[in-house]
Amino acid sequence: MRRLGIAELGSAIGERVEVRGWVNAVRDQKRMQFVILRDETGMAQGVLEKGDEPSALNDAVSALTPESTVRVVGEVVEDERVKLGGLEVRLAELEVYSAADPELPVTPESSMDKRIDWRQVDLRRPDRRLIFEVQTTVEAAMREHWREQGFIEIHTPKLMGSASESGAELFRVDYFDRTAYLAQSPQFYKQMAMAGGFDKVFEIGPVFRANPSFTSRHDTEFTSVDVEISWIDSHEDVMAFEERWLRHTFQSVAQRHGPAIEETFGVELVVPELPFPRVTLADARELLRGHGHEGPQDGDDLDPASERALSAIVREHHRHEFVFVTDYPTTVRPFYHMRHPDDPSLTRSFDLLWRGIEITTGAQREHRCAQLRTQALSKGVEIESIDYYLDFFRYGAPPHGGFGFGLTRLLMQMTGQDTVREVTFLYRGPNRLTP
Amino acid sequence: MRRLGIAELGSAIGERVEVRGWVNAVRDQKRMQFVILRDETGMAQGVLEKGDEPSALNDAVSALTPESTVRVVGEVVEDERVKLGGLEVRLAELEVYSAADPELPVTPESSMDKRIDWRQVDLRRPDRRLIFEVQTTVEAAMREHWREQGFIEIHTPKLMGSASESGAELFRVDYFDRTAYLAQSPQFYKQMAMAGGFDKVFEIGPVFRANPSFTSRHDTEFTSVDVEISWIDSHEDVMAFEERWLRHTFQSVAQRHGPAIEETFGVELVVPELPFPRVTLADARELLRGHGHEGPQDGDDLDPASERALSAIVREHHRHEFVFVTDYPTTVRPFYHMRHPDDPSLTRSFDLLWRGIEITTGAQREHRCAQLRTQALSKGVEIESIDYYLDFFRYGAPPHGGFGFGLTRLLMQMTGQDTVREVTFLYRGPNRLTP
Repeated sequence: MRRLGIAELGSAIGERVEVRGWVNAVRDQKRMQFVILRDETGMAQGVLEKGDEPSALNDAVSALTPESTVRVVGEVVEDERVKLGGLEVRLAELEVYSAADPELPVTPESSMDKRIDWRQVDLRRPDRRLIFEVQTTVEAAMREHWREQGFIEIHTPKLMGSASESGAELFRVDYFDRTAYLAQSPQFYKQMAMAGGFDKVFEIGPVFRANPSFTSRHDTEFTSVDVEISWIDSHEDVMAFEERWLRHTFQSVAQRHGPAIEETFGVELVVPELPFPRVTLADARELLRGHGHEGPQDGDDLDPASERALSAIVREHHRHEFVFVTDYPTTVRPFYHMRHPDDPSLTRSFDLLWRGIEITTGAQREHRCAQLRTQALSKGVEIESIDYYLDFFRYGAPPHGGFGFGLTRLLMQMTGQDTVREVTFLYRGPNRLTP
Repeated sequence: MRRLGIAELGSAIGERVEVRGWVNAVRDQKRMQFVILRDETGMAQGVLEKGDEPSALNDAVSALTPESTVRVVGEVVEDERVKLGGLEVRLAELEVYSAADPELPVTPESSMDKRIDWRQVDLRRPDRRLIFEVQTTVEAAMREHWREQGFIEIHTPKLMGSASESGAELFRVDYFDRTAYLAQSPQFYKQMAMAGGFDKVFEIGPVFRANPSFTSRHDTEFTSVDVEISWIDSHEDVMAFEERWLRHTFQSVAQRHGPAIEETFGVELVVPELPFPRVTLADARELLRGHGHEGPQDGDDLDPASERALSAIVREHHRHEFVFVTDYPTTVRPFYHMRHPDDPSLTRSFDLLWRGIEITTGAQREHRCAQLRTQALSKGVEIESIDYYLDFFRYGAPPHGGFGFGLTRLLMQMTGQDTVREVTFLYRGPNRLTP
């Protein structure tokens, strides 16, 4: 007897098969019993006649609670009247693996908070599951491109002896008789890989931010995608890599999930054309003003409203959903971003916006030890705390650059969700450490 | 003018090309200067004549320090006498990206500790780099197999509100006004994914153990590979998955790096035959005694010496490097391992040994909430601390099982290294939080 996924039942008309799955619903009528079964591939109707004397099997069906897990055996019968695939399974055997408590604690309409409390039930909905299928495809496509280009995968330590960038928003860990810190980004260590001759690296892993805010974009732990590339001429090489890499990723997602995303979330996935539009921050400011947005002041970063406005302008004028904003002033960039030789108030840096939200921050890094030290001093960084980092560049380092990419922000936009909590397997925030 | 990797120079005889890389060594003779250049693809010799009046370029070469990074331009000339590829580059231009301090702090012969202090220099050696190329291939092959089988990738939280398994070896984090704990494994959360209807999942990510030991196998942070599968009949299904998955992985590594691994580390990579041998722990104990090893007592786990001895016996008798040891007693297994229905003192569990070292622990899990609670009580687990975990199984859960796999242990054996520190990008131990 074959064990089949529900989506395969159409190939087994007239056959006795086994199905394992969830009880989606039970209708216990006077003469007939119906069990809607659900597995990872779809839903199907199980059916059983009931005589004047209910059989043991009838009683077992009557006792079923929704969301219990079961193994059923039965003959697959074609029936055009049945909405679920035009077939039904005539139940012959039923085994209950795990009986669900009768009252479910949560529904799709429950608050986000309550749904996270019962994430194990919430995730069973096919639309929630689709989000993580898309995530799986996104990461696989990214890795495919990295692999073709000869990148090395690294796993950098999340436990650090001192702060990775600034001392703010840092989690402290009791580490034997001292204090460790949780990495806010793999930034310094991916640069160590460059100094270590690894040439091109990537990492997908958790980062930690002791950020007390509760916005739809923030969490205290999230999955960061990091890339670093050696022997570049400028940040332009990094952007040229990123746009090809994203195009490949979008192609892969569109091919595998495009119709499902559109049907489930009402969001069209547009594979972006190359090259992506680029605009300097100074020009972006002018562009925003020309369109009646106040925009950021000189020396300031784009705020979320400006990001949305800029994306809308670019979409209208360039028919493109992406835009690289480049050449940020040193005031809003960390000390290790390389400065323009002809204008040291500007950095060789960029952000990437997609549909009004920043999904990437990147730059060429300063690889010359003395210059790096000078820049750190000019930004008021305590040299002692970054001595080990400066050491990375004392014995030769290639010119290099890279970017950090927010996986959850991408997924949020890709599946039309309104908060990163929906696209995070299990959200962590200032008040949220459970389940 | 083409920019080429050193391995490509043979295709450019007579051509003026650009090369970017490291100064491996300089020989500054009376009439000739030689610069050995190194990049990610290999090494080549640069050459420059010196007249009575040294040129600016001669002076620049004289000033080069080993491990500096440079860009050179020159004509590629065939010369059979040159050991490095039978060619040399006649230097015409030289740009120094980053000049290395003259005295290197570390050599390949330095102590492991010192080499970790200067990991950015240590990693430049091609044999160190090969370890991480192998790691990249290992993970890519694992993912390839998961993807073919329809697995979903998850990223479980590393910040937890309470202990993941036992309270021992747990790192504490200051989390706003309370305490969080670093995940020792994604165990509970990958089971949540099963309860959440994800069917088959994997995760590759960091785990944290506040283990004060300094052995060659231990660290406080390492990369764990985790798998969990639903709708299984027993732990046998999990083992059947793992052996196919490992065979695929070994095939991929052998194909891509087999000769390099043998040449560099003197280790032969043997692609394992299916199925892997299986032996119950009770039988393993008899086998060990029959071969003159004392072995573990009843109810005890295998110690490292017994693991080595058992692997040697299996290798001799089955000509196989792997062995599944199954059916561990409940005394040495956690409460959530499913027990044998016909002998509740034994669990449906297994370890996998490879070349004398345990690389996997797996089991079918108990998915029935009431039974799980009973088992927790019988093992003296404080129910309050696992209430949230028991909740995972209250509203239906499929029968499931899986395993945790030590990536660093696999790599250590695969590349013939004597400690996990060699195969970890940046080791973390009780006294080691830097760089």
